[in-house]
Amino acid sequence: MSSSDSLDALIQALRRLPGVGLKSAQRMAFHLLQRDREGARVLSRALHEAAGSVQHCARCHTFTEAGVCHTCLDPKRDATRLCVVETPADQSALERTGAFKGLYFVLMGRLSPLDGVGPKEIGLQKLMERATNGAVQEVILATNFNAEGEATAHVISEALKSRGLHVTRLARGVPVGSELEYVDLGTIAHALADRR
Amino acid sequence: MSSSDSLDALIQALRRLPGVGLKSAQRMAFHLLQRDREGARVLSRALHEAAGSVQHCARCHTFTEAGVCHTCLDPKRDATRLCVVETPADQSALERTGAFKGLYFVLMGRLSPLDGVGPKEIGLQKLMERATNGAVQEVILATNFNAEGEATAHVISEALKSRGLHVTRLARGVPVGSELEYVDLGTIAHALADRR
Repeated sequence: MSSSDSLDALIQALRRLPGVGLKSAQRMAFHLLQRDREGARVLSRALHEAAGSVQHCARCHTFTEAGVCHTCLDPKRDATRLCVVETPADQSALERTGAFKGLYFVLMGRLSPLDGVGPKEIGLQKLMERATNGAVQEVILATNFNAEGEATAHVISEALKSRGLHVTRLARGVPVGSELEYVDLGTIAHALADRR
Repeated sequence: MSSSDSLDALIQALRRLPGVGLKSAQRMAFHLLQRDREGARVLSRALHEAAGSVQHCARCHTFTEAGVCHTCLDPKRDATRLCVVETPADQSALERTGAFKGLYFVLMGRLSPLDGVGPKEIGLQKLMERATNGAVQEVILATNFNAEGEATAHVISEALKSRGLHVTRLARGVPVGSELEYVDLGTIAHALADRR
């Protein structure tokens, strides 16, 4: 499209980012080359660095540069509770609440048979080994509350319960700060069923 | 936020892209590291390559790796007509119509005093020299039809007319395929005034 091969190559490469189409990629390339060349160099180095050094934690499967991440190595964490999340971003959201002091297992995805993501891809076997290591007393399922997240939680829950583990799920209910009038009916029904 | 410094660095670097906030950057970093490491390496190389080699065409100011872009060097182009556009993406849109065989001048922006973009930043002096080189008979202003684009067109138009050049502007009117009922009133008013 342009009069520069390396500009075209850059636009094509930017399109590999999720949610970025041709127009966004053009806008990004234009911005970097016209106004932020230093940003382009910084991003280039960061990508090279991360693609080369980031691997999965041997215990919880999250991204880390070391063999085991520092959350798993932290002796102050409560090893009797294991929280199962879909992505490192979900883990980060839970961490920021400050309400959980246990350990994590990061599935790095969710069950999605149509996309070819089965129990093997989300590391179900590894999770089983981790949960049955003797230290874990409770597994908290914190997958998302959409169809795929619920299905994933169901499959994991069945597998863990068959080994006699205590499995819980994050509570469904009315979000903090909301008014009942504007909350969807499914959520209210769940909040009613799970009242305490 | 995460348990990996190079992942954090990558997320921060991705946030320098226009339109990318923290959540999008996390999603992009996660996607690249979990599903498309090759994409991360390709993008890293493309950024490094483009940031190092892409420069501005000495004649039309667009992005190119050579000193002069191949549109400017093409002897089949009509050198008597010069089309002024804001960005290479706009130039590409005009090229794809196949309706223009002249040459271009790319402003690489538009006048926007609040952002510190003045006549110098859009290369007005260079455009003046280019338009008064003796070959150019008509300058077609194809800046955008928003407030800043119109202001830019006005300033350029006044400067060129004072040197006795023939200046035209892309026609304003009803878009092809649209129904009058749904076209905004300003556009219909312009289409009426510019009827032919």
